[in-house]
Amino acid sequence: MAYTLTLRCEIQNQPGMLGRITTIIGEHGGDIGAIDIVRAERGLVVRDITVRVLDENHGERLVTAINTTPGVRVIRVSDRVLLAHIGGKLAVQSRVPLKTRDDLSIAYTPGVARVCKAIGDDLTKAFTYTWKRNSVAVVSDGSAILGLGNLGPEAAMPVMEGKAILFKELADIDAVPICLRSQNPDIIVQTVEQLSPTFGGINLEDIASPSCFIVEGRLHESLDIPVMHDDQHGTAVVVLAALRNALLITGKQMKDVRAVVNGVGAAGTAIIRALLEAGIGDVTPVDRYGIILSGDDAHQTPMQRIIASQTNRDRRSGDLAAAMAGADVFIGVSQGNILSPEMVQSMAPDPIIFALANPVPEGDPDMLRHYARVVATGRSDQPNQINNVLCFPGIFRGALDVHATKMTSGMRLAAAEALASVIPPDEVNEEYIIPSVFNRHVVPMIAHAVAQTAINEGVARRTHIPTNT
Amino acid sequence: MAYTLTLRCEIQNQPGMLGRITTIIGEHGGDIGAIDIVRAERGLVVRDITVRVLDENHGERLVTAINTTPGVRVIRVSDRVLLAHIGGKLAVQSRVPLKTRDDLSIAYTPGVARVCKAIGDDLTKAFTYTWKRNSVAVVSDGSAILGLGNLGPEAAMPVMEGKAILFKELADIDAVPICLRSQNPDIIVQTVEQLSPTFGGINLEDIASPSCFIVEGRLHESLDIPVMHDDQHGTAVVVLAALRNALLITGKQMKDVRAVVNGVGAAGTAIIRALLEAGIGDVTPVDRYGIILSGDDAHQTPMQRIIASQTNRDRRSGDLAAAMAGADVFIGVSQGNILSPEMVQSMAPDPIIFALANPVPEGDPDMLRHYARVVATGRSDQPNQINNVLCFPGIFRGALDVHATKMTSGMRLAAAEALASVIPPDEVNEEYIIPSVFNRHVVPMIAHAVAQTAINEGVARRTHIPTNT
Repeated sequence: MAYTLTLRCEIQNQPGMLGRITTIIGEHGGDIGAIDIVRAERGLVVRDITVRVLDENHGERLVTAINTTPGVRVIRVSDRVLLAHIGGKLAVQSRVPLKTRDDLSIAYTPGVARVCKAIGDDLTKAFTYTWKRNSVAVVSDGSAILGLGNLGPEAAMPVMEGKAILFKELADIDAVPICLRSQNPDIIVQTVEQLSPTFGGINLEDIASPSCFIVEGRLHESLDIPVMHDDQHGTAVVVLAALRNALLITGKQMKDVRAVVNGVGAAGTAIIRALLEAGIGDVTPVDRYGIILSGDDAHQTPMQRIIASQTNRDRRSGDLAAAMAGADVFIGVSQGNILSPEMVQSMAPDPIIFALANPVPEGDPDMLRHYARVVATGRSDQPNQINNVLCFPGIFRGALDVHATKMTSGMRLAAAEALASVIPPDEVNEEYIIPSVFNRHVVPMIAHAVAQTAINEGVARRTHIPTNT
Repeated sequence: MAYTLTLRCEIQNQPGMLGRITTIIGEHGGDIGAIDIVRAERGLVVRDITVRVLDENHGERLVTAINTTPGVRVIRVSDRVLLAHIGGKLAVQSRVPLKTRDDLSIAYTPGVARVCKAIGDDLTKAFTYTWKRNSVAVVSDGSAILGLGNLGPEAAMPVMEGKAILFKELADIDAVPICLRSQNPDIIVQTVEQLSPTFGGINLEDIASPSCFIVEGRLHESLDIPVMHDDQHGTAVVVLAALRNALLITGKQMKDVRAVVNGVGAAGTAIIRALLEAGIGDVTPVDRYGIILSGDDAHQTPMQRIIASQTNRDRRSGDLAAAMAGADVFIGVSQGNILSPEMVQSMAPDPIIFALANPVPEGDPDMLRHYARVVATGRSDQPNQINNVLCFPGIFRGALDVHATKMTSGMRLAAAEALASVIPPDEVNEEYIIPSVFNRHVVPMIAHAVAQTAINEGVARRTHIPTNT
């Protein structure tokens, strides 16, 4: 994964030395961002050279190459990403003054006793007088961290802190990272149940399949606050929103299209369920063993068997190429470079391709755009980025605003429709089917739709959406 | 418990009306703080009258009395404490910028993956790159909230939020309230064990005896981060500090004195243990059944049996009065107004009395001061307030500063000595044995002593106290 290094170099002060260094960097494929002078001494110049490299090995090769150049010594290597993480990304803040004896007697003893009694007499007052009103626990067991796999709870913390600051910046939600010692789904469920009086919602994150289905399903049943596994539903909501707008371009109706979903793990399963709930014509699910077909269950997980029973109604079989022939939509949450030009050409007219594997999409984006009508990826350097940052802040904002007791599929569908509608229909085009994560209409529009749906479905403690929260 | 109400009153605009209202408030024992005019309309004046009342019943009687006065209507009653708690007292804050695509790629994907890998390769890096470095979970089951009893986890939240903001304001620690659904000690232990990868320390709070002993003891053994039940040890540390300075006044040595400890629950037990560790001559423990005597264990809890085996070496028996005769020190964590002048007069010369029952001390402070040399209470309106706010911010600051693995009795003793030494010996006097919670030397002095002790005892991951944290 590409990143930026700053190399502090001690360079002998001779003509042509800097040029020699920049040449070496260029020869080794480094991309120079900036060159700053730190200080000049007798016969020596110290410079900071900021270089973008492809990955860690590349960075190490570059440092070695510069270090073995006569007259140059690398005295420090700073890594911008690691530097930014020193001390963590999150802090706690007091919302009340605490400077005088009087402040103390209000916020703490003896005054606080009256607030405790008020809540003890009426538990719903916890939403009035505590941070439960606005707080979400971001819970992980570290078993499936991004694309890195199972690195354990401590290594998951930077992702959970990242989600927490996104919750804050985008939706003013107070989110707390909670990384658990165990990866046993029973223990995860028990632990989150124990935490539930403290929080207004639970965002499950980076929990491997099939644990994630078990944990989310059981917590959804047992808790009286909304629970969502973002890797499943966050992705599914954004995919569904993007698909709605992509279909506007092709003029097809949801009920008439067939989508191939390649990769039937946590995200793929949630995408398929969301497509079915949204009334799609049919889904052809494909995993590493080929098209998933009901009854042909030698390799199927319990969840895939359920999916098989609800999809592939024309009972296709075979490999990915067989699935692609005549399909209207391809959604990949699988691995890089598995789509060939022939596969895309075999699709129905105006193909829609969401190639979401990270960091390498299922097909080269330029190739895909050559053959398909609409292309989306997970990459921020391509148009139409499918990014679940578009979903989780707004959907939890809406749920918290009405003190929701559940996160339902209806609330997720409403979130997808609201997200799609952020782009006015006459502005939707092949390169603009989904808004930017920095579009300031995204969170309030999703939140409003989700809150109203929660009220309509009877899973809200409030009967009206507050005008200010 | 006294508190302040603001009454918004609609008053007919006639001469003498305001005087009539203030007379009624005075007759009913209300203490007027301020009278503001909100607006004047035809024939009506709307005023906010701020009144201090003794308790909720008093407040209600006063409102009724004003409301039944001809020409006056109370249109709103605002309660300053409840108002200050609306929305909770705590928020989460981002420590890094998050305004651009570039910020996002550093704090979240794809950059964050490199931080996760760095921690996955070396778990101690969690202290460098996550908030574990500076975070404490404030955990309660709501079974013993202040003096209110068992009101459950939701009702405990305002206290835990209060502790969290005190941690922040006094020691710059990021503390998170965690209130648990269950009051079963096994489940509390399991849950906190699950949370432990996320935090740098665990502050247990308002957990009833005997659960609190079981939970703290087991977590102390099983976790690699410091664990402290503040109701036990926070109080004990402050008592010990205050006692050290009180003994300076009387000129007695710790090893020569006998202390009566009345009330042998969570706080009393911890106080007795701390006194023994500090080398006190003897302790005479007393509970509701009288002096606790080893072997006479009909009414004793398992913890009291352990205490009995380590105390009361001259095998006194009988009631509180029997315990008091000839004692040097009385420490009460029991109930109001149980000390008589005769009991205090029966003590050894220069009696030291810590009457810590809340809100009513074990004896009237004026009476106690008349007969005893040094008197301390838990009250903020008396000199020498024993307040555990003096301990927990500094002791956790010190433990976090060196990434401590345990909270030991040695660290607590060091905290007590440091707290005592905040007052220079020549400034110690009968009315100044313990510093104010707003004394800015308290936290750094405790923290430094605790950190150094953790290093000396081999329970620190760092070998030096950082000069800036």
